[in-house]
Amino acid sequence: MASFERTLPLTRESVAKAHDLIQPHIHYTPVQTNTTLSRLASTPQSPEALQGTRWEGQPPAKPEIQLFFKCENFQRIGAFKARGAFHAVKRLIEEQGLEEVRRRGVVTHSSGNHAQALALAARTFAIPAHIVMPTISTPSKIAGTKAQGAHVHFSGSTSQEREAAVADVVKTTGATLVPPYDHPDIILGQGTMALELQRQVSELIQKDAGLSVGDAMGLDAVIAPCGGGGMLSGNAVALHGTGIKVFGAEPSFQGGDDARRGVEAGKRIETVKTLTIADGLRTPLGEHTWKIVSDKQYVAGLYAVTEQNIKDAMKLVLERMKCFVEPSAVVGLATILYNEDFRKMVEREAGEEGWNIGVVFSGGNTTIDAITKMFAPEVGEKDGQRAEGVVGKDGAEVAENVAG
Amino acid sequence: MASFERTLPLTRESVAKAHDLIQPHIHYTPVQTNTTLSRLASTPQSPEALQGTRWEGQPPAKPEIQLFFKCENFQRIGAFKARGAFHAVKRLIEEQGLEEVRRRGVVTHSSGNHAQALALAARTFAIPAHIVMPTISTPSKIAGTKAQGAHVHFSGSTSQEREAAVADVVKTTGATLVPPYDHPDIILGQGTMALELQRQVSELIQKDAGLSVGDAMGLDAVIAPCGGGGMLSGNAVALHGTGIKVFGAEPSFQGGDDARRGVEAGKRIETVKTLTIADGLRTPLGEHTWKIVSDKQYVAGLYAVTEQNIKDAMKLVLERMKCFVEPSAVVGLATILYNEDFRKMVEREAGEEGWNIGVVFSGGNTTIDAITKMFAPEVGEKDGQRAEGVVGKDGAEVAENVAG
Repeated sequence: MASFERTLPLTRESVAKAHDLIQPHIHYTPVQTNTTLSRLASTPQSPEALQGTRWEGQPPAKPEIQLFFKCENFQRIGAFKARGAFHAVKRLIEEQGLEEVRRRGVVTHSSGNHAQALALAARTFAIPAHIVMPTISTPSKIAGTKAQGAHVHFSGSTSQEREAAVADVVKTTGATLVPPYDHPDIILGQGTMALELQRQVSELIQKDAGLSVGDAMGLDAVIAPCGGGGMLSGNAVALHGTGIKVFGAEPSFQGGDDARRGVEAGKRIETVKTLTIADGLRTPLGEHTWKIVSDKQYVAGLYAVTEQNIKDAMKLVLERMKCFVEPSAVVGLATILYNEDFRKMVEREAGEEGWNIGVVFSGGNTTIDAITKMFAPEVGEKDGQRAEGVVGKDGAEVAENVAG
Repeated sequence: MASFERTLPLTRESVAKAHDLIQPHIHYTPVQTNTTLSRLASTPQSPEALQGTRWEGQPPAKPEIQLFFKCENFQRIGAFKARGAFHAVKRLIEEQGLEEVRRRGVVTHSSGNHAQALALAARTFAIPAHIVMPTISTPSKIAGTKAQGAHVHFSGSTSQEREAAVADVVKTTGATLVPPYDHPDIILGQGTMALELQRQVSELIQKDAGLSVGDAMGLDAVIAPCGGGGMLSGNAVALHGTGIKVFGAEPSFQGGDDARRGVEAGKRIETVKTLTIADGLRTPLGEHTWKIVSDKQYVAGLYAVTEQNIKDAMKLVLERMKCFVEPSAVVGLATILYNEDFRKMVEREAGEEGWNIGVVFSGGNTTIDAITKMFAPEVGEKDGQRAEGVVGKDGAEVAENVAG
């Protein structure tokens, strides 16, 4: 199977090079702040909120936190995946020459954001893109991928069937496989967001002294969702040596926190089968991403949140920030707001000074239909009560954005 | 009843003065563009889309449109109303002196965005705010208004009962009534958004030549939602004499297009009773706003859209722009996309050059619960089909943001 010839070392310098390469093709996405959410993050959870959790009865943590949201939901194709895909394609062109890449094409198996991202990157350079999708994919996804100009190949839905279909495409066309996360060029591409985030937060703090907690002139930490781990690894590589700590967040539902469990056990978990609503995070770590994610020098900690935590955080982001995100995007914020292990760690490490934390909103590719299903009536009402309780704790400021 | 002593003339200069007054207190909200939506606006509707409308069988219009969205959903309290409220309060302070205003307080009747906005503006200057709300208001709205530090007074839900309650408050406290829309200071305050929009669009076009249609270096037109007409009037006053045309958009459901019907008949419609999902637009025009809205020199035209148009537009804004807005906010975009009278007018007036149109997203104060109810299963499916049809017309570019 064709693959990339040489790969760059996984360093901050390589991420900077990747950023130079892809900058003409990606959006420099905004960083947003929100008084209400930073205030909530810095408010201890109520004893009632901890009932039924493993922190029940413990005194709630009192961290001091200022939040900075990197809005990759505004990225091209609506998710950060455009970064890695453009980087992989541009590196291929550097190595093989544009004509050769055009002759051979690129291939991947995915029905998700990576497929859209690769199709877009390939189309930009008039390179044929082959996307292997399960026959059972929803018609709108198939249509969307075809509309990007990609060749859609169908396969069964097991990973063996998909890999066989990819091998077929490679055999027939000579196309190069661009994997969704477990490749150095993808990792380096995704890491470019961290360079932007670091710079944007410094600029925001210089412009508005009130934005920062403590005396810090920039970021203290970044928290990012972890599925296959490409983006978390990229952030960790990009920020390695800067003193900015990087944390990963996962859904705990049906063992979706495979990275956390694997690191705890000292061994990569190779398969995971979860139907968490954070559907971008259902994949296990790959070999490359495991090496980085399991290294404390790169990823300082991994935390997990419940499905209810994810829904609560999503509701806050939509209703208060007026920002449309997918469930996978809010696991970092959910960790900050609801995971007492994380909150106690921040209280301990940051002290009264507090931390400026960058939160990666990874994407916004969900639909009103999906949200309607997710917040079905019973659950919706429970959510409503929960949100009200949160408001009640913090009078006027928190209520500033309440629907009128 | 106490009221404002003097009012400024309704001119662009007065709007500029209002802007100077309120700038320290409001957000300079962003203007966003979106390739997919501008492309859709410039794509003729399909004959199928016109079936069952009054344009069935007619050749669809082919306007050339570049869209610029003024995102007042990111304004303080989540809606443009903060502009008018801060302006009215600061003008009161100028006229009566801060001490006198603090002694008397301010009062309004509203359970919506204006109440929140007035409560915020009053709190900023430590002025007592009295809000008259119907007893049947939802507990979360009452709690939200109280959390802003306002005194809540209850009344029956008819307008006579509300006015009697306001009169009571005025009698007891000497508070000054700050009406929600039909007052020059409110109109001038809301108009400030147009000054920002005009400047922001020029800056965007100078930065990126590809953004503009034709040779224009700025805005050709603005379209804004019309309820009580305060904001539409304000925009019209602010842009009067600039050559930028101002249009109003309304929901047609149950006669919600009272401004359009009134202007057509040459007489203000004083009562309207509609339960349109665009709940910010259920009010009729007032005396002041009628004068401006019915004057062709100020408002060049009024257009109406159906409930389905509003839902379709809202789905596009949430799913494609990743921007969380309330239904009232999208009637302007819905007019541009689905009202053939408007589209034919643009085709005729703008010709091949096309128009750069500013679209006011008035607010984002809705909830996931409300959206879930609005897009109930049956309706949701129909919506899905409709959106797919729209995508299908315009291959790759339009599909760039399709969920992956």
